[in-house]
Amino acid sequence: MKEASDVPFSRAGVAGLGLIGGSLALALRQTGVQVAGFDLDENTVVAANAAGIKASALPDKLFDADIVFIALYPDAAIGFVRENAACFKKGCVMVDCCGIKGRIVEELTPIAEASGFTFIGGHPMAGSEFGGFRAARADLFAGASFLLTPPASDLPQIAPLEQLLRRLGFAQVVVTNPAHHDRMIAFTSQLPHALACAYVLSSSCPDHKGYSAGSYRDVSRVAHINPTLWAELFLENKDAFCAEMDEMINHLQALRDAVVADDRNALETLLRQARKRKDRDGTGDS
Amino acid sequence: MKEASDVPFSRAGVAGLGLIGGSLALALRQTGVQVAGFDLDENTVVAANAAGIKASALPDKLFDADIVFIALYPDAAIGFVRENAACFKKGCVMVDCCGIKGRIVEELTPIAEASGFTFIGGHPMAGSEFGGFRAARADLFAGASFLLTPPASDLPQIAPLEQLLRRLGFAQVVVTNPAHHDRMIAFTSQLPHALACAYVLSSSCPDHKGYSAGSYRDVSRVAHINPTLWAELFLENKDAFCAEMDEMINHLQALRDAVVADDRNALETLLRQARKRKDRDGTGDS
Repeated sequence: MKEASDVPFSRAGVAGLGLIGGSLALALRQTGVQVAGFDLDENTVVAANAAGIKASALPDKLFDADIVFIALYPDAAIGFVRENAACFKKGCVMVDCCGIKGRIVEELTPIAEASGFTFIGGHPMAGSEFGGFRAARADLFAGASFLLTPPASDLPQIAPLEQLLRRLGFAQVVVTNPAHHDRMIAFTSQLPHALACAYVLSSSCPDHKGYSAGSYRDVSRVAHINPTLWAELFLENKDAFCAEMDEMINHLQALRDAVVADDRNALETLLRQARKRKDRDGTGDS
Repeated sequence: MKEASDVPFSRAGVAGLGLIGGSLALALRQTGVQVAGFDLDENTVVAANAAGIKASALPDKLFDADIVFIALYPDAAIGFVRENAACFKKGCVMVDCCGIKGRIVEELTPIAEASGFTFIGGHPMAGSEFGGFRAARADLFAGASFLLTPPASDLPQIAPLEQLLRRLGFAQVVVTNPAHHDRMIAFTSQLPHALACAYVLSSSCPDHKGYSAGSYRDVSRVAHINPTLWAELFLENKDAFCAEMDEMINHLQALRDAVVADDRNALETLLRQARKRKDRDGTGDS
């Protein structure tokens, strides 16, 4: 455990101790900062305390934190901050962890301003197809991006927040705006989840064993989905999500049509374009 | 290196020393069986010899093998066997490695019968998004399935072949027929490759860095595709491939329509069905 002295916040609070909140709490604890956790689920509170996180089913312990992470589903996050807005420490920094930013930022920014704290939209780009505190781990964020959508890009709180996030393992902090965030996430995160689900719904899927290998495993992985959370995320990001879905369907249709027409040239051209795109990622990178 | 005595063949030949053929040759060598390799590419021949495989740009060394693996693209495989049919050792077993089985089996079975050897359709369910002998490795097949489509399911050559394949690292050998093989592969292998390519063709893809994590990485992995090979595989399996593509497009459309209609119930129902399908895989398995 390193000294807390090089961490720009002395008390941290985490609301919601699932995969993301639990991992944040565990990672925060390793930096030496004081961490308090809140979760409505009693089993989660017990598990978190057993793992050394001071957790409670009441939010009070979060009210003297200098930095508060909100790791709840979008609707719950908005409701939680609205209800407790008057109680958070004046001048504290609050960051949410929701997969979409548009509505969250729109709703929480004025509440924060009226209540004397700073709200910064946040999205840790790490996860797992398994959820809950039992899946949480202090190193979940190693090498990941943390996306921030602050009310202004020159906000003085960004620098200390970035310093803390790097101590939690994040390799980069990307500052953007909610609309661009939501468009990019529709492609990098929401579309792969929709693809995985549509894929395993194939009538061939139940018979895959013995006939499948890495391609099946990778594309189907995130079909182990949380239906409530992802329905909320897709619906909250309707326009960007549907634009990506439409483009995806069009590209699939083009591949299919080339095969139906026995048009080897058209097919190879499409595959070659895809290969070129993927080549930009390099071989050691995603 | 184990003794060759427990390997049911004493001389093996491998035609085509790319990722699959090269890996087979390296794995065969480790069992102690004598291995001869053939590849038209001189650099590949040099690299294979440097790795201890007796390789040549002429096929002659394959003609006294008891077991011959054909690891060439479908059209090239058929051409190679047809041209050299009279030269293979009488009574030898020949197994191809092509990703589709229908036409291969149809074309090569009568040639084998007329020429005095046994042809068994084969498909090792292992691979990589990287190709060529430089990507080959002796342990590529560890834990994988080898799919066989023999001319009869009680063929006496199946048992020794299975024994050899297990020595090469394969965890299971699945005996099926060409039509069923091709239907299953359309789902487990061809569709994920089409999805990966259609995915990276999105106009959002070039900007993904900083906004992407595991979901992007996994679904896009096999977009690092060999356009010539996969165009041939898709076209050779047109009916099964297009049936899977149509089902996929329909499921994507259903997800999209539920979002457009703000129909949370319909959306959650689809995601829950997908989750249930994926749950059947268990947590430690693909």
